[in-house]
Amino acid sequence: MKIGELGEFGLIDRVRRLLPAPSGDVIVGIGDDVAVIAGDGGRVWLATCDVQVEGSHFVRGAISPRDLGAKALAINLSDVAASGGTPRFALVSLGLPEELDVEWVDGLYAGLRAQADTFGVCVVGGNMSRTSAGLFIDLFLLGEASREEVVLRSGARPGDRVLVTGSLGDASAGVALLLDGALSTSEAYARVARARRDAPTPRVREGALIGRSRLATAMADVSDGLAADLGHICERSACGARLFSEALPVAEENRALSRAASGDEWRFALRGGEDYELIFTAPAERAGELAELVWRETGTPVSTIGEIVEGGRPAELVLPGGRAVPIDGGGWDHFHAKR
Amino acid sequence: MKIGELGEFGLIDRVRRLLPAPSGDVIVGIGDDVAVIAGDGGRVWLATCDVQVEGSHFVRGAISPRDLGAKALAINLSDVAASGGTPRFALVSLGLPEELDVEWVDGLYAGLRAQADTFGVCVVGGNMSRTSAGLFIDLFLLGEASREEVVLRSGARPGDRVLVTGSLGDASAGVALLLDGALSTSEAYARVARARRDAPTPRVREGALIGRSRLATAMADVSDGLAADLGHICERSACGARLFSEALPVAEENRALSRAASGDEWRFALRGGEDYELIFTAPAERAGELAELVWRETGTPVSTIGEIVEGGRPAELVLPGGRAVPIDGGGWDHFHAKR
Repeated sequence: MKIGELGEFGLIDRVRRLLPAPSGDVIVGIGDDVAVIAGDGGRVWLATCDVQVEGSHFVRGAISPRDLGAKALAINLSDVAASGGTPRFALVSLGLPEELDVEWVDGLYAGLRAQADTFGVCVVGGNMSRTSAGLFIDLFLLGEASREEVVLRSGARPGDRVLVTGSLGDASAGVALLLDGALSTSEAYARVARARRDAPTPRVREGALIGRSRLATAMADVSDGLAADLGHICERSACGARLFSEALPVAEENRALSRAASGDEWRFALRGGEDYELIFTAPAERAGELAELVWRETGTPVSTIGEIVEGGRPAELVLPGGRAVPIDGGGWDHFHAKR
Repeated sequence: MKIGELGEFGLIDRVRRLLPAPSGDVIVGIGDDVAVIAGDGGRVWLATCDVQVEGSHFVRGAISPRDLGAKALAINLSDVAASGGTPRFALVSLGLPEELDVEWVDGLYAGLRAQADTFGVCVVGGNMSRTSAGLFIDLFLLGEASREEVVLRSGARPGDRVLVTGSLGDASAGVALLLDGALSTSEAYARVARARRDAPTPRVREGALIGRSRLATAMADVSDGLAADLGHICERSACGARLFSEALPVAEENRALSRAASGDEWRFALRGGEDYELIFTAPAERAGELAELVWRETGTPVSTIGEIVEGGRPAELVLPGGRAVPIDGGGWDHFHAKR
């Protein structure tokens, strides 16, 4: 069987079974946003890695090296944020074709450094290798947290509310505008969409705050698309979920673009990926307090978009009028050709 | 300027200047085998990453996925060993073309796991991405050590002896035998050379032992070639070095192959790379004791191959008869086409 047939998540499941279960100092291994490693005095280390590959994640001429450097770190910062931790140290592994201009690498590091400085991260090392084809930027990030403040994908319980920061689908709209010249929208929204695509802002302060609050029961970042990342929470928490379309923080222009591109106004919001927002759950009686806390302390809006229900059936989206449609699966999968 | 003109080490120097100097919890940043990060209670974390890129580091049909998985971890284990630490946790970032067989990935993880089990490492997480061209296996490794037991590249002093574990040039001979059908050697040595090329044994126990002994003043692993890695020690320690050809642990067959391939019998040993031996320095009066300790505790032979001298001139190799030739530079550089 080819890995393209098995798919990314099938392959990760398969690999997980080939490796020993977490034990000893490994509190959480493969299958969450980060690995969690015991430190001293009730502290833990959070370790993650994520890569930007030319041709799969970006087109070299369509993103500046500065934006790409910042984004390569952002996607990792987002994973540490989604675990309630604080990012600390990064290593950078670059695969570079030898005909690349030195100035391009300068730009990449300028973006990387600016992003690192913004969030108090030190780039402590790395590696450079020649590639014969495209380039890649692989980032390894170490964060830390108090052990009780770590929020995993696995703690959601029926009755919990589902919350999400910011807005959904904008990065996806940005990709669609890049790839499909027939699509159009307002200049203002095109700017938003391009910025969300090329220069995502990881929710670092929001994630650490949610961790410290100890009010959230589960959390993930929206990197593969809301449906897929909510699916990860449901799977790891053995529960289901019901979302309400009218509560989703999606711009009008986004729904129009999604409808024009796919026939489905919710497609970008649910399946687009690369939003780098945080999706999290909290007991119903504390959800409002948590949303208010995040908004007050960081200025980032938080929407309550649904609720956790008993497991055993797919997550669903309740449309205006009350009809419910299943939304499980179908997020971004690196080894399936289509979104 | 193209990065191919600047070269790998020029590029690393340039990047180092774009980043802040190590401070706070970062004890050692870019420029050694590992980054050193302060932990609690006198412990430090050692962090490193290194990648195997198809077409640059390996040919897919010429190495089994099992060997490749083991090697990808081995090259990182070697960096932690070269710092006197003990490897603990690994993350694996894979770039895979979608037409790859799932069984190939199984084999890769089988090799990775066997290597991890051998050296007490836990694979705690990772990432998988699609690539449009070749594949890559990027490994991130965290090790630990007592702060006083860490051995850096920077501590060598004039008068110190230069020591090396095992033997030199064999992996290089293995690569030459793979690429140049006109070369030949004994079947026994061809087996050794292939094994050193495809299944290197990182000197993990040796490195940790050298760290704990507190007798070594500097250490590096021989990954870019003895001349280049000794050069890194000399540069970071602001000193020079003199090696004696008759003391180099190089097989007769290796010198013959090196002569046949390049006209220089020492080329594989000095410039070949991928030996994954440890090169280290120790005060003259303790060097014999340290060599004896490593051999007795691990069974790995250690050769005293030269001495550290005052800086200001290139490292040199003293040939039989006493003639000295400069040997600085000229190791493996990822962005220069030739060794």
